[in-house]
Amino acid sequence: MKWTWVLVAVLLSFAGISLGKDSLDFPMYDGKDRVHDLHAKNYKSVMKKYDAMVVYYHDHPGSSRVAQKQFEIEELALELAAQVLEEFDDEDVGVGLLDAKLDKVIAKKLGLDESDSIYIFTDDEIIEYDGELAADTLVEFIYDVLEDPVEIIDNSKELKGFENMDEDIKLVGYFKSHKSEHFEAFADAAEEFHPHIKFFATFSAKVAKALDLKLNEVDFYEPFTDDPVVIPGKPYTEEELVKYIEDNDRPTLRKLQPYNMYEIWEDDIDGEHIIAFAEESDLDGFEFLEILKQVAQDNTHNPHLSIIWIDPDDFPLLVPHWEKTFGIDLSSPQIGVVDADDADSVWMDIEDDEDLPSADELEDWIEDVLIETTQVKSKGASRLF
Amino acid sequence: MKWTWVLVAVLLSFAGISLGKDSLDFPMYDGKDRVHDLHAKNYKSVMKKYDAMVVYYHDHPGSSRVAQKQFEIEELALELAAQVLEEFDDEDVGVGLLDAKLDKVIAKKLGLDESDSIYIFTDDEIIEYDGELAADTLVEFIYDVLEDPVEIIDNSKELKGFENMDEDIKLVGYFKSHKSEHFEAFADAAEEFHPHIKFFATFSAKVAKALDLKLNEVDFYEPFTDDPVVIPGKPYTEEELVKYIEDNDRPTLRKLQPYNMYEIWEDDIDGEHIIAFAEESDLDGFEFLEILKQVAQDNTHNPHLSIIWIDPDDFPLLVPHWEKTFGIDLSSPQIGVVDADDADSVWMDIEDDEDLPSADELEDWIEDVLIETTQVKSKGASRLF
Repeated sequence: MKWTWVLVAVLLSFAGISLGKDSLDFPMYDGKDRVHDLHAKNYKSVMKKYDAMVVYYHDHPGSSRVAQKQFEIEELALELAAQVLEEFDDEDVGVGLLDAKLDKVIAKKLGLDESDSIYIFTDDEIIEYDGELAADTLVEFIYDVLEDPVEIIDNSKELKGFENMDEDIKLVGYFKSHKSEHFEAFADAAEEFHPHIKFFATFSAKVAKALDLKLNEVDFYEPFTDDPVVIPGKPYTEEELVKYIEDNDRPTLRKLQPYNMYEIWEDDIDGEHIIAFAEESDLDGFEFLEILKQVAQDNTHNPHLSIIWIDPDDFPLLVPHWEKTFGIDLSSPQIGVVDADDADSVWMDIEDDEDLPSADELEDWIEDVLIETTQVKSKGASRLF
Repeated sequence: MKWTWVLVAVLLSFAGISLGKDSLDFPMYDGKDRVHDLHAKNYKSVMKKYDAMVVYYHDHPGSSRVAQKQFEIEELALELAAQVLEEFDDEDVGVGLLDAKLDKVIAKKLGLDESDSIYIFTDDEIIEYDGELAADTLVEFIYDVLEDPVEIIDNSKELKGFENMDEDIKLVGYFKSHKSEHFEAFADAAEEFHPHIKFFATFSAKVAKALDLKLNEVDFYEPFTDDPVVIPGKPYTEEELVKYIEDNDRPTLRKLQPYNMYEIWEDDIDGEHIIAFAEESDLDGFEFLEILKQVAQDNTHNPHLSIIWIDPDDFPLLVPHWEKTFGIDLSSPQIGVVDADDADSVWMDIEDDEDLPSADELEDWIEDVLIETTQVKSKGASRLF
């Protein structure tokens, strides 16, 4: 990849200085080409050089000026990621590009079906990243990929940490030891979903008792719910665990994050999304989120209900755009139904943010709107709750 | 400001499309000049046009290629911020540049003393931003600036939200109503520190009782501590509140955030920082953070102790750089003493992250290292704990 922009002048000196306040200077791209253009002749030898390989399987860039520029900006984000990862000591991580038009055959050989996504190749797994194409978000995700898929809960302080993590689907199992065959099946299943789903295990009888877990038993937690479901049929094979997770991987309430935003957006239900905006660091937003969690707890077993929670604080640059597109004010909590294709939307009328709807009122509203929009689409109404 | 780079081609079309998945497309800079070059002839008329004005009072850019490029990248971040803020409906926010060499007289008239900082002018206040010069972090900070300085706690769910916010210094007062003169003094004091310090009030006797607050009383909370200090001498004038806060605004444990990172770094103690790295979303990191909070609780009243907590998750691009500079492995918790000027550092030897130090061991280690480094600097030893 050749960089011809004036912008990407050699700025290496910034990364090199480490004195005082400069410890806090963010790295800038130094202009060196690190991202590999993968093709039939080089992809095997390039990928062999690294412990892990990040491959952007991109659509062939359009010929318009805008499309070209967008692709260059994406390349620049990948170059910065590659530069930062080069300094990373734990593993050698490479970054490469694969063109969906020119390199289709290689992509097929590598097992990639969907283009316009980033794939991370590790020893045994291929992990898809369908989030923001920004260096910091991607690099953070890669650190997570490189961590152990199963975290061990050793004591009560760590148990508190486990309980505190509620934004993703998580599983926890109690096993005799690292060597237990049942733990191995659990760890193998973890590799299939890591790092999107969090896997924990304990070998401590005390921790297991606090979690109310029997030996070789695994609990499944939806995001934002305190009460787990015991996966039936212990002890489990890897395949049984994988199947159970795949059958239950769409939570009732899930948080849109920069690293999973496009993945979640693609998983619409009948072409629609229920979207709730709530700023957790704001009192009204926090209160509304508590109500949403209540709705989620009450409807955990309803596969037709999945609310996407967006905290505007996580996407400051999109706030004005969303306010305009959806015709809403994001300084207050909002909930609406959005068409995944054309972004048409209907929003609940929350007149006074000092008098937010109850969980029941929220459920009724969602049900009414979904029946209405379903009828409009002539698919016939169906009872959701 | 003239943009000559190829990079900044007209990309407006991206911001315009709002269909489906494109609802989630991050805005790119469209190439239009929005940032004002402020000078003697225009600054008054420009600033009058906006409800709020963001002014980057920058050092005169050096003549080296690297310095020029860095300044251009900073300008680009400001242009993107200005573009996003232009779409923001609530208030008209302008962005301008002031050169510390060429516009010193204007800066003085505006009351700006320190260059290399961003100042946000609102109706009555000038608020300093000394964080990362990135569009998203800055825009998010500006949204916070534009919110009310005092949030009202109406009910028990919002009280839970209040209790949940523990990363910043916060104050909460109980007053009769919005019209109370004591509430007004509180709100006036809030304007002086907003949004760096969080101000809450309640007019509900029930909420006040749960907080153990008497009428016109204000509680002061350090970050990460559950037990507040009652500010003595109620009812207070605005000046009394301001003085109390200024005397107590360096917490025992504080979190480095992208929006306050340089401000915190400048506030060293005898040229040194105690830095703790702990990843909250990791079990070891969470456990270590619990221990740090214990140390902070035990030493709330010690003005000589201030630990800076850095969550590596918040700064993914800096992780390899820090690992190299400090010679540490950030996949485990770390605590050390860092020289603010030359980044020399000493780190605690945490052999096994399954056996983290206790709060007492941590306090002993900090005390020993600080005495040692103080002796090396021939300033004489002093007992800290």
